[in-house]
Amino acid sequence: MELTKKRLAQIVFDHNDKASRTFDLVLLALIFGSVLVAVLDSVAELHDVYGDTFYILELLFTFLFTIEYILRIWLTSKTFRYVTSFFGIVDLLAILPVYLSFFVVNIQLLTVVRALRLLRVIRILKLGRYLSEADFIKESLKASMAKIQIFLFTVLTVVLIMGTLMYLVEGPAAGFTSIPRGMYWAIVTLTTVGFGDITPETPLGQFIASLIMLLGYAIIAVPTGIVSSEMAKRRKPDEIIHTKACHSCGEEGLGLSDLYCRHCGEELDKIR
Amino acid sequence: MELTKKRLAQIVFDHNDKASRTFDLVLLALIFGSVLVAVLDSVAELHDVYGDTFYILELLFTFLFTIEYILRIWLTSKTFRYVTSFFGIVDLLAILPVYLSFFVVNIQLLTVVRALRLLRVIRILKLGRYLSEADFIKESLKASMAKIQIFLFTVLTVVLIMGTLMYLVEGPAAGFTSIPRGMYWAIVTLTTVGFGDITPETPLGQFIASLIMLLGYAIIAVPTGIVSSEMAKRRKPDEIIHTKACHSCGEEGLGLSDLYCRHCGEELDKIR
Amino acid sequence: MELTKKRLAQIVFDHNDKASRTFDLVLLALIFGSVLVAVLDSVAELHDVYGDTFYILELLFTFLFTIEYILRIWLTSKTFRYVTSFFGIVDLLAILPVYLSFFVVNIQLLTVVRALRLLRVIRILKLGRYLSEADFIKESLKASMAKIQIFLFTVLTVVLIMGTLMYLVEGPAAGFTSIPRGMYWAIVTLTTVGFGDITPETPLGQFIASLIMLLGYAIIAVPTGIVSSEMAKRRKPDEIIHTKACHSCGEEGLGLSDLYCRHCGEELDKIR
Amino acid sequence: MELTKKRLAQIVFDHNDKASRTFDLVLLALIFGSVLVAVLDSVAELHDVYGDTFYILELLFTFLFTIEYILRIWLTSKTFRYVTSFFGIVDLLAILPVYLSFFVVNIQLLTVVRALRLLRVIRILKLGRYLSEADFIKESLKASMAKIQIFLFTVLTVVLIMGTLMYLVEGPAAGFTSIPRGMYWAIVTLTTVGFGDITPETPLGQFIASLIMLLGYAIIAVPTGIVSSEMAKRRKPDEIIHTKACHSCGEEGLGLSDLYCRHCGEELDKIR
Repeated sequence: MELTKKRLAQIVFDHNDKASRTFDLVLLALIFGSVLVAVLDSVAELHDVYGDTFYILELLFTFLFTIEYILRIWLTSKTFRYVTSFFGIVDLLAILPVYLSFFVVNIQLLTVVRALRLLRVIRILKLGRYLSEADFIKESLKASMAKIQIFLFTVLTVVLIMGTLMYLVEGPAAGFTSIPRGMYWAIVTLTTVGFGDITPETPLGQFIASLIMLLGYAIIAVPTGIVSSEMAKRRKPDEIIHTKACHSCGEEGLGLSDLYCRHCGEELDKIR
Repeated sequence: MELTKKRLAQIVFDHNDKASRTFDLVLLALIFGSVLVAVLDSVAELHDVYGDTFYILELLFTFLFTIEYILRIWLTSKTFRYVTSFFGIVDLLAILPVYLSFFVVNIQLLTVVRALRLLRVIRILKLGRYLSEADFIKESLKASMAKIQIFLFTVLTVVLIMGTLMYLVEGPAAGFTSIPRGMYWAIVTLTTVGFGDITPETPLGQFIASLIMLLGYAIIAVPTGIVSSEMAKRRKPDEIIHTKACHSCGEEGLGLSDLYCRHCGEELDKIR
Repeated sequence: MELTKKRLAQIVFDHNDKASRTFDLVLLALIFGSVLVAVLDSVAELHDVYGDTFYILELLFTFLFTIEYILRIWLTSKTFRYVTSFFGIVDLLAILPVYLSFFVVNIQLLTVVRALRLLRVIRILKLGRYLSEADFIKESLKASMAKIQIFLFTVLTVVLIMGTLMYLVEGPAAGFTSIPRGMYWAIVTLTTVGFGDITPETPLGQFIASLIMLLGYAIIAVPTGIVSSEMAKRRKPDEIIHTKACHSCGEEGLGLSDLYCRHCGEELDKIR
Repeated sequence: MELTKKRLAQIVFDHNDKASRTFDLVLLALIFGSVLVAVLDSVAELHDVYGDTFYILELLFTFLFTIEYILRIWLTSKTFRYVTSFFGIVDLLAILPVYLSFFVVNIQLLTVVRALRLLRVIRILKLGRYLSEADFIKESLKASMAKIQIFLFTVLTVVLIMGTLMYLVEGPAAGFTSIPRGMYWAIVTLTTVGFGDITPETPLGQFIASLIMLLGYAIIAVPTGIVSSEMAKRRKPDEIIHTKACHSCGEEGLGLSDLYCRHCGEELDKIR
C-alpha cells in the first residue's frame, strides 16, 4: 500500500487499521514518556543525577511532537479550524515550552504547560468504547449543571458566613487571621478534607465547627443525589452481552471465562 | 417611555425588559463589590494600606443600598408587608452596619451582618431558570426532612456515647479533657473531617476510633440514599419557569400566569 | 376523671391525650436535663464551681427516674417481660449509676452508663410520625445487610493487607510501630478521615498511600449505591399533600404558606 | 459411612452436610487464628513476651495448612489445574512463608504473604447466601468498569495538573518539594482524606487548594452515581443460591444444576 497523503491522514486521524493503531500506541507512549520526564525532573535528587538526560529526552519529545504538529497542519484541509480547535491548541501547547525556554527566563512556569500534555491522551481515548461511556458521564453532568451551580452558590454563601463567624469567634490566635483564611478553613471543613492546619480552640468555636461539619455531612448527599437520579433517568435499556453459548449443545448464559460447558462438558471457544 | 412610578416599579421588581435587567446587573455588581470589600478589609496587610479606601467604598455602597431600600418602600403600596418580609429584613440588614457603627462600639460583630448581604443575591437569582431547579432541591430536602431528622438524632446519640467513651478511655493526656471535647472529636471523626488536633493514643482508644470511622463510612450512605431516592421519585421533565414579582409588596417568584399575589392578594400585571 | 391504675397506665404508656403528652414532655425534659448535667460535669472548670449542684441534680434525676421505674413495674401486668425487654433494661441502667456509686469506687465508668440515658428518648420518639420513617431506614438497612457485611469484610481484608504493607515499607520511624497501628492508619485513610497523626514519609509509602486513598474514594460508592438502590426499590407511591386549594374559586395547587389565592385574590385559610 | 476418597472429597470441597461444615468451621478458625498471630507478633511488646509461643503456633498452623494442601492435591484428579488456579496459588502462599524463612534472610517481607492468608476465607464464604450478594456487587462494579476507568483517568489528570501547579506556587518551603509530592498532596486533598502533613501556606496556594476541594466534593458524586444507577438497574428479587465444587480440579462456586465443571470439563456429582 503506497503512502499517499490520503493514506497518511488515515493513519494519523483514524483508529481503524493496524498502522493507525500502531501510530496511536507510539503517540500514547511518547505522551506518557514526556509527562513522566517532567514529573521526575522535578525531584531534586533525580534532577542532580539525570538532569542532562532529562533535558535531552525533553528536546527529543519536543522534536517528535513538532513533526506530528506540522504533519497535522499539512494533512488537514481546513487548517485554520484545526489550529484554533481545542486539540489544535493543546497540540501547540505541547511543543511550546521548549521553544519558549530559549527566550524566556522563567522556565518554571512552563512546567505546568508541560503537564497539560496529558490532555492529548484524550484524543486517543476517543478511539472506541470509552467514547459513549464518557458521553454518558458528560451528559449526566451537563443536565445536572443548573442544580450543581445552585448547590455551589449555596455552599459558597455558607462558606462566607461561617468563615466570617469563625474569624470573629476564634481570631488570629487560633490561625483565623482574616476572613479569606476563615473561608479557606470553612471549605477545608465543609468538604470533610480537614487538614488540621487551622483548628478552633475555644468551646464556642468548636461548637460552631461541629455544626458546619454536620451540615457538610448532610449536604454531601445533595450533589450525589442530583447526579445519581440524573444517571438513573438516562440509563439506556441496551446492554452488552456478558455471556456466551456452547456450540455443541446450545446451552446459553455461560460465563465469558468458562473453559467447558456446564451442560455437556464440551470445550468452549475462547472469547476475548 | 416616561419614568412614571409604575415604570420604576417594573424596573425594580421585574426581570423582563432591558432596563430592569440592567438594574439587576448593577445591583448584583454592588452586592458582590460590598461583600468583597468586607472580606478584603479583614486582611491586616490590606487594611493597613487600603483601610481608608475600603471605608469610603463601604459608605458609598451603604448610601446606594439605602437609596434602593427607600425606593422599594416608596414603590410598594403595602409597605408593612414588604418591610416584614424575608427580603425586606435582609435589605435592611444590608445597610444597618454602617449606621450602627456610628453609635455602637463593637464594630466587629457587624462584619457578620455585612456578610449576610450575599443573601440579597438570591432575589436576583429568582429571575428565571434557576428557580425551578432550586425548588427541586428544596422540595426533595423538605420531603426527606423527617428521615434526615431521625438520622441526625441517631448520629448525635452515637456522638454522645462515643465522646463519653473516648473521654474515659483516653483522658486529658491525649486532649480529651471533657465530654464536650470528646463529642467534638467524635463529630470530627464521624463526619470523616479528621482535623487531627485531638487523636487517640492508646491501643484501646485507636480500636474504638476505628469502629467509629467504619461506622461513619457506612452511615454516610444513609442521607445520600434518602435524598437520591427522593430526587429519583420527583424528577420531572426539565422546563424553564419564568416568574414575576408583586409591585405592591415586593413578593418575588410568582408564576407568570398568577393573577393575584399570594402574599398580599393584590391584582398582578399581565405579562406576555 | 379519677386517677385509677388504668388511667395512670394510659398516661405513662400512651401518647394520645393531653395528660399523657404532658407526661412525655416532662420525661423528655428530665432525660435531656440529666444527660446535660453529666456532660457539663465532665468539664473541669464547671465541675470545680458547680460540682455540688450537679451532684444534687443527679440525685434528684435518679430519684424521679426511680419513681418512674417502680411505676412502670407496678403498672405492667407482665412485669418480667417488661424488666427483661430492651426498654426495661435501659430504664434500669438509667438509675443504676448513682446507686452503684455508693458501693463502687470507679465512679468514672458509670459516666458511660449515664450517657446511655439518651436511649430512653427513643421510647418517646415512637409517638407518631417518626416511626414509619425510622422503619423505612431500618428496613432498607436490614435488606442491605448481607451486601454490607460482604463490603465490610472486603474493607477489612484491604485494611489488613495495606496495614501490613505500610508497616513493612514505612516502619517504626514514621509511626507504623506494629501491624495493628498500620491497620488503624489504613482505616483512618480508607474512610477518608485522615487525622495526620501517622503519615507516610518515604516516596514508596506515599505511593501506596495514594493507591489506598483512590481505592477508598472509589469504593465509598458501593455502600451508598447499595442503600440508595434499596431505598429506591421500597419507596411507596403514597404521598403527603404539599398544596392547598382556594375555597372561593377552587384553584388547586397553592403553596401551604400562601396567604392569598393567586387566581382570585381571596384570603386563604391558614393551614398548620 | 466409610471414609473413602470420594467421601473425603465431599468433606473438603462441598459445604452441604455436617462433616463438611465442621471442616469449614475448623478451617475458618485456623485461618483467623494464623492471621491474628501474625498481627499480634508485630507488636514489639507482645513479641518480646510471647515471641516463642507465636513462633510455635505459626509452625503448627503451617503444618496443618500443609496437610490440607497435600490433601487437596491428592483428592483432585486434575491436579495441575488446581495448583495453577487462584485458590491453588493462595493455598500455596499460605504455607510458603515458614518454609522460605528457613532459607531466606528477609523474614519481614514474608509477613505480607502471611496476611494474604485471609484471602482463603473467600473460599468458605462461597458456601451459600453470600455468593449471590457478592456477585451482585461484583457484576455492578464490572458493568460500571469502563465509566470508572474514565473517571479515574480524569482524576489522575486533575491530580497531575494540580500537583504541578501547587509545586510551582508553594514550593519546597511548604513541603511541596517535587511534582510527585505535589501529586501525593493533590490525591490526599481530592479524596478528602486531608492528612495535613503538607498544607498550602500562601494565599494563592490556599485559593487553588479551595478550588481542588470543591472540585473533589463535587466529583465524589460521579462514582456514586454510576454505581447507584447500575445497582438500581440490575436489582433482582432476593434469592439464596447454593453452590457446589468440582471434585476434580477444586473449582468453587458452580451452580447446583450444572452438570459439568466450567473449569476442567469433568462431570459433576448430582446434589439434591
